[in-house]
Amino acid sequence: MIKRPKILVTNDDGINAQGIRFLIDVVRDLGDVIVVAPDSPQSGMGHAITVNSPLRIKMIVEEDGYQEYSCNGTPVDCVKLGEQVVLKGKPDLLVSGINHGSNAAVNIVYSGTMAAAIEGCIDRIPSIGFSINDFSHNLNFEPTRKYIKHIAAQVLEKGLKNGICLNVNFPIIENIKGIKVTRQADACWREEFDSRIDPRGGNYYWLTGKFVSRDNGHENDINTMEEGYVSVVPVKIDLTAYNQIDTLKYLELNNEPK
Amino acid sequence: MIKRPKILVTNDDGINAQGIRFLIDVVRDLGDVIVVAPDSPQSGMGHAITVNSPLRIKMIVEEDGYQEYSCNGTPVDCVKLGEQVVLKGKPDLLVSGINHGSNAAVNIVYSGTMAAAIEGCIDRIPSIGFSINDFSHNLNFEPTRKYIKHIAAQVLEKGLKNGICLNVNFPIIENIKGIKVTRQADACWREEFDSRIDPRGGNYYWLTGKFVSRDNGHENDINTMEEGYVSVVPVKIDLTAYNQIDTLKYLELNNEPK
Repeated sequence: MIKRPKILVTNDDGINAQGIRFLIDVVRDLGDVIVVAPDSPQSGMGHAITVNSPLRIKMIVEEDGYQEYSCNGTPVDCVKLGEQVVLKGKPDLLVSGINHGSNAAVNIVYSGTMAAAIEGCIDRIPSIGFSINDFSHNLNFEPTRKYIKHIAAQVLEKGLKNGICLNVNFPIIENIKGIKVTRQADACWREEFDSRIDPRGGNYYWLTGKFVSRDNGHENDINTMEEGYVSVVPVKIDLTAYNQIDTLKYLELNNEPK
Repeated sequence: MIKRPKILVTNDDGINAQGIRFLIDVVRDLGDVIVVAPDSPQSGMGHAITVNSPLRIKMIVEEDGYQEYSCNGTPVDCVKLGEQVVLKGKPDLLVSGINHGSNAAVNIVYSGTMAAAIEGCIDRIPSIGFSINDFSHNLNFEPTRKYIKHIAAQVLEKGLKNGICLNVNFPIIENIKGIKVTRQADACWREEFDSRIDPRGGNYYWLTGKFVSRDNGHENDINTMEEGYVSVVPVKIDLTAYNQIDTLKYLELNNEPK
């Protein structure tokens, strides 16, 4: 009997989101699937972990080749619990998503979906985050199936270099033209806070804002999606700006301060 | 009259933590200080932002050259509110910390202190996160003063390259030998979950674990601190693994999947 690979699936939109249901369906073709996903939406949680309150996991499905658990923690907690408590070891592949909304450019740092992939990468599990630049309700994910299966199968077969995971972003999905490996665009959010007054006269704020690209180059993840391609960015967990180690000498930090 | 620089101060241990009180005291020598910090501890929050609940800020001190606000959100929320609501513009410098506990190596991704500095960097504010490898209660921070002042003054005067911020980690602070600019060490947490039973018979878990270096090289942030130096790592917000864009060709992603 051939041993099927173990695939850990998580996300940040919560275990009942359309995106993860579709992703589970796709990767069940490739191996035994273990889902550990948040019991409620966790968008914008970044790489948060739960250190000051207890974590609980709840078994939802347990059958041959398929296990599903929900967890009251963050996406990164789900990865840690999936490894330590459910699998008691490393899966052969970690996939996170499909996130409802793009995680291109700077969105990667706010994204729980990508934080889960980065957490897998820290633990040297081949890890991929999938996101789609479309918030439509009742979205037809079907056109993404062959791309997800292809990318996941390739990574399962050939692995990824230590310290690298993949940030995969789908464009609006009618007529996807293909896949391109590219880089993170330089962009930011121009924030505005919606300021309101509560019934007792207190001020409160809702975070809102507009996503703005500052990237004049071509061949980045935003352009790639706009051109109708699936964007694949290899992502590092080592954040060192190596080319700045020497140039930081201008700060004269090595002079003994007074 | 000389215009004094505006310095935004935040942290993740909360506005009453010893570390931020000391940091405020140090940077008040360098400019007008605006504190916007979490009203409760936010350790391990990573780059989380608050998108599904209202944010509130509370004025604590407002005097000439010094303003202090607490906020019910995350460290990254504090930076956004500090810029948009309190300052209505960018400060000349953002400093975050002093974090109680090291943010060397992989700790940077879990750290709210460093997330605040990274958020400032995304907004092109010269930003520095300060942390100390010491959890002692009633720690004497005084030996760090001249280093913080030197680093902050240098960055205020000379700036940082767009897309770069600084991760500064202090060793156990008796006899600091000097400052070294270095790189992020390769390390990880070997997690264990402390499994317990609640009074109603339910299982729950506390996250715990041991920090393990996998780095065989010298000259990284962990070694630098162990040798008694202040570690300064230039940190990038572009996570692209550029040297992998071409090598990812082995995955044959550009072949049309079936």
